[in-house]
Amino acid sequence: MKIIVIGGTGTIGKAVAEKLKTDHEVIVASRSGGDINVDITSEASIEQMYKTVPNIDAVISTTGASHFGQLKDLTPELNEKAIESKLKGQVNLVLIGQHYINEGGSFTLTTGIMMDDPIVNGTSAAMANGGVASFVKSAAIELEHGRRINAVSPNVLNESLGKYGAFFKGFNPVPGDKVANAYVKSVEGAQTGQVYKIY
Amino acid sequence: MKIIVIGGTGTIGKAVAEKLKTDHEVIVASRSGGDINVDITSEASIEQMYKTVPNIDAVISTTGASHFGQLKDLTPELNEKAIESKLKGQVNLVLIGQHYINEGGSFTLTTGIMMDDPIVNGTSAAMANGGVASFVKSAAIELEHGRRINAVSPNVLNESLGKYGAFFKGFNPVPGDKVANAYVKSVEGAQTGQVYKIY
Repeated sequence: MKIIVIGGTGTIGKAVAEKLKTDHEVIVASRSGGDINVDITSEASIEQMYKTVPNIDAVISTTGASHFGQLKDLTPELNEKAIESKLKGQVNLVLIGQHYINEGGSFTLTTGIMMDDPIVNGTSAAMANGGVASFVKSAAIELEHGRRINAVSPNVLNESLGKYGAFFKGFNPVPGDKVANAYVKSVEGAQTGQVYKIY
Repeated sequence: MKIIVIGGTGTIGKAVAEKLKTDHEVIVASRSGGDINVDITSEASIEQMYKTVPNIDAVISTTGASHFGQLKDLTPELNEKAIESKLKGQVNLVLIGQHYINEGGSFTLTTGIMMDDPIVNGTSAAMANGGVASFVKSAAIELEHGRRINAVSPNVLNESLGKYGAFFKGFNPVPGDKVANAYVKSVEGAQTGQVYKIY
């Protein structure tokens, strides 16, 4: 398969790309770095990516930014970051990509545990995650030509505890390898409309 | 209590306003008509509403538009309707309203069954609904001064079968009165962070 991993330079993306490389052609896309550059907040940039890399069998998104901060300081403007990137960025990879990827191809997006198990400072990300999860469940029943779509919703990773541990006190971190396996299951399996919760 | 029902001229909004009027002061807000006009896609209009109606104890939103249509025809542009109205419109009622409503006040937003049980043509609405549901769960743990937030997620209403029945074949419609009761429970009860699923 020809697989593109958007956000493939991040912690999860790197683990997923590494795992899939053994059996597949993996192209790493990222805002900067990687094999190809893409800005998922720009429809034109997404369109350009699909034109530059034709005949994709699987699109994996392990990207999407959100503002983290207290609800009382969360303004509509600060909330735009999650709307534009984590939500619309990932959704637009599918809305645009459905006209480009191969028959029988798949999309795998990324949400996160805070949509189910909220954390202080995480409301904007939770909102985007919940939107992506319901989008995936619904899009699955309408994608044509055998195309599939799933999402992976990870807990905080062992590997990210240094950076994010303070936000996730009392959560049980999961190994990056276990999270990466969910993406492999989505790509190599036949399920659709699933949100794999690695909690 | 002083309660504002945004979307109070719609099928659900009217039923909710009617039910709450017996014991409370109810102000109906709507894009056109009602006691006061508000366009939830405009932050300035939301801000103006809160300035015009001070000392609110409960904000109920039974509004929010989405594009309905097949996924293959769903463009990022058409998807904006749900983003701007059903998702951001309702979220901004809270982000802005948290600085205006009374201590111990509540917000009650509206999602819909298609976020859990998808229908053809409903992906954009499902996405917005899922975003609102996760926003509610997360915002609840951070709202200050005893303020609460819940959402109601209705199935298709008996009263709306004429208009929407074709989209919801095989669904079990629910009485508007039962849905309206969930809003009353949210406003008059003490729960927070709940999504009342009237399926």
